[in-house]
Amino acid sequence: MKVSILGRKNLEQVLELPSVIEGVKSAYRLKAAGKTVVWPLVSYDFEEVGGVMDIRSGCIFGENLHGLKMLNNFPANTEKGLPPFNGMLMIFDSTTGIPLGVMDAAYITCMRTGAAGAIGAQALARSDSEVLLILGAGKQSIYQIAAALTLLPGIKKVYIADALNQEHARTFAAACAERLQKDFSLECSQGAFLAAEDLAAAVGESDIIITITPSRSPVILKEWVKPGTHFSCIGADMEGKEEIDPTLFQGAKIYADDVKQCVQVGEMELPIKQGVIREADIAGEIGQVLSGEIPGRCSEEEITIFDATGLALLDLVTGKRAIDLAQAKELGILADI
Amino acid sequence: MKVSILGRKNLEQVLELPSVIEGVKSAYRLKAAGKTVVWPLVSYDFEEVGGVMDIRSGCIFGENLHGLKMLNNFPANTEKGLPPFNGMLMIFDSTTGIPLGVMDAAYITCMRTGAAGAIGAQALARSDSEVLLILGAGKQSIYQIAAALTLLPGIKKVYIADALNQEHARTFAAACAERLQKDFSLECSQGAFLAAEDLAAAVGESDIIITITPSRSPVILKEWVKPGTHFSCIGADMEGKEEIDPTLFQGAKIYADDVKQCVQVGEMELPIKQGVIREADIAGEIGQVLSGEIPGRCSEEEITIFDATGLALLDLVTGKRAIDLAQAKELGILADI
Repeated sequence: MKVSILGRKNLEQVLELPSVIEGVKSAYRLKAAGKTVVWPLVSYDFEEVGGVMDIRSGCIFGENLHGLKMLNNFPANTEKGLPPFNGMLMIFDSTTGIPLGVMDAAYITCMRTGAAGAIGAQALARSDSEVLLILGAGKQSIYQIAAALTLLPGIKKVYIADALNQEHARTFAAACAERLQKDFSLECSQGAFLAAEDLAAAVGESDIIITITPSRSPVILKEWVKPGTHFSCIGADMEGKEEIDPTLFQGAKIYADDVKQCVQVGEMELPIKQGVIREADIAGEIGQVLSGEIPGRCSEEEITIFDATGLALLDLVTGKRAIDLAQAKELGILADI
Repeated sequence: MKVSILGRKNLEQVLELPSVIEGVKSAYRLKAAGKTVVWPLVSYDFEEVGGVMDIRSGCIFGENLHGLKMLNNFPANTEKGLPPFNGMLMIFDSTTGIPLGVMDAAYITCMRTGAAGAIGAQALARSDSEVLLILGAGKQSIYQIAAALTLLPGIKKVYIADALNQEHARTFAAACAERLQKDFSLECSQGAFLAAEDLAAAVGESDIIITITPSRSPVILKEWVKPGTHFSCIGADMEGKEEIDPTLFQGAKIYADDVKQCVQVGEMELPIKQGVIREADIAGEIGQVLSGEIPGRCSEEEITIFDATGLALLDLVTGKRAIDLAQAKELGILADI
């Protein structure tokens, strides 16, 4: 049995954001159509070394795929000169159980997570949105920006906020246009990217806010937010994480990537546990909006929130696409397993 | 990052049963010493195609390893000319989260499961045991026999039982000595291997019984079993599976590979759910016996039962050994991930 083995470099050679976005949209739609299964999330805290791991798995009957990824995030690696974020994704044919491929999971996670944040914004933000704020200036932020600019050409200004390190936000913003050109072939004016020097003011000016930090307490307060703002909450994907004021959920139109998982580990976990909202207040899943089954935003005034905890389904469609493209280009290794 | 990719042929070239057995024993002992974590089992029934998958994962702090395997069992593959039993194992360094290797999981599962059954028998069976019965003549049975004969040189007769297909048991028994010689370098007299023509009589004659079928109702009745018999119950590893009369648990000395998992999916699942025994009746875990923390068998008369549901810990130690041996012999592929 020949199994496709793809390293990060191979993935960078074959995956392009527009096609990753299409794959993620199709996975969300297949989920809405009942053609997927999300298996229980397994996670673990390596307390002694300050690392975390999670295993996400699932099945897409619509594509005859199942599989899983294990992701490890060990921030202390950086001091040792090692990459902090590592993982592997394995993909099987769900009609035979035969393995199709194994690959680096870190790059695919960044690409498909960027796609998720932007898809939520495209589906739910006001169509006249011009100002985007990215909360978080870590390794995943550039993917969020690239995907948002790919799907939302009306965006004219992008704020970058780092609540812990203002200088970091400035350095990040200054390098944005060049990185987007180099890594994503996106032509943008450098003037569009600004560090959020005054977070409250930047929030108040923003039409779309994408949060992508590991925060465990709210960074964005309700009083800063203007009516009609859309949030794609991406960072909260484990119990105890939250990035925005729980009261922002009150009266908002709330969407999940997977209701069960969001209630368990998403941005809505704590607001529900605290009784700020009930599970019944969730409007539905993003795939239902994409497939026209339920409405998205209904007014220019309402706050919309897309809570995305991350699904193996997204990795599976993206990974399978990478396998097909790599085989066509004769990249990677075909190994006997 | 160089990751070791090992196919089944590589594993066959480097893994030998005696060293696999030592590895499995060490994993059980590390578990008893509190140096391991077993993460929750994820499993799924592909009802339409009659397949099952499970994900087992965990961490061995004693060896700085963590990881998981996904195993798929799709019996209908056989009709399509495809192998029914496929899977992959991935191993990471638990101090950094960096991947070490990916490999076929089917062969390792067979080897370490054989080791588990035999380790239970060595630790708990009467020391004068001479007759072994293997319930099940499927792909894993030869590994159970090979490991048992490796650890228990006093065995003089081996019955093979197949409750569904007597002819299959005969064919299997007739080929045993040659397969053991060829695949495990074990020299045995062909006369030692017999199909169990009368299951009740063979059970009554046996000192050690290893069950390795996917049965969902008891095949071995209590009235057939003589005092002092040891059971290694290996087949029951998912909810609803059982191979032996639940009342055999009454008054028996019961051991688990992992108490939580055995209560959930092991041979003891149904006897506990039916109220035949309580969880408090479990004497302990096999690793506690191996490390001398709790006693094993205390009389020649008692029935001992080792319930083994399978732990990723066993795969991890075995897989890491394979990586080291393969690197020393320059086998397999070192891939950039």
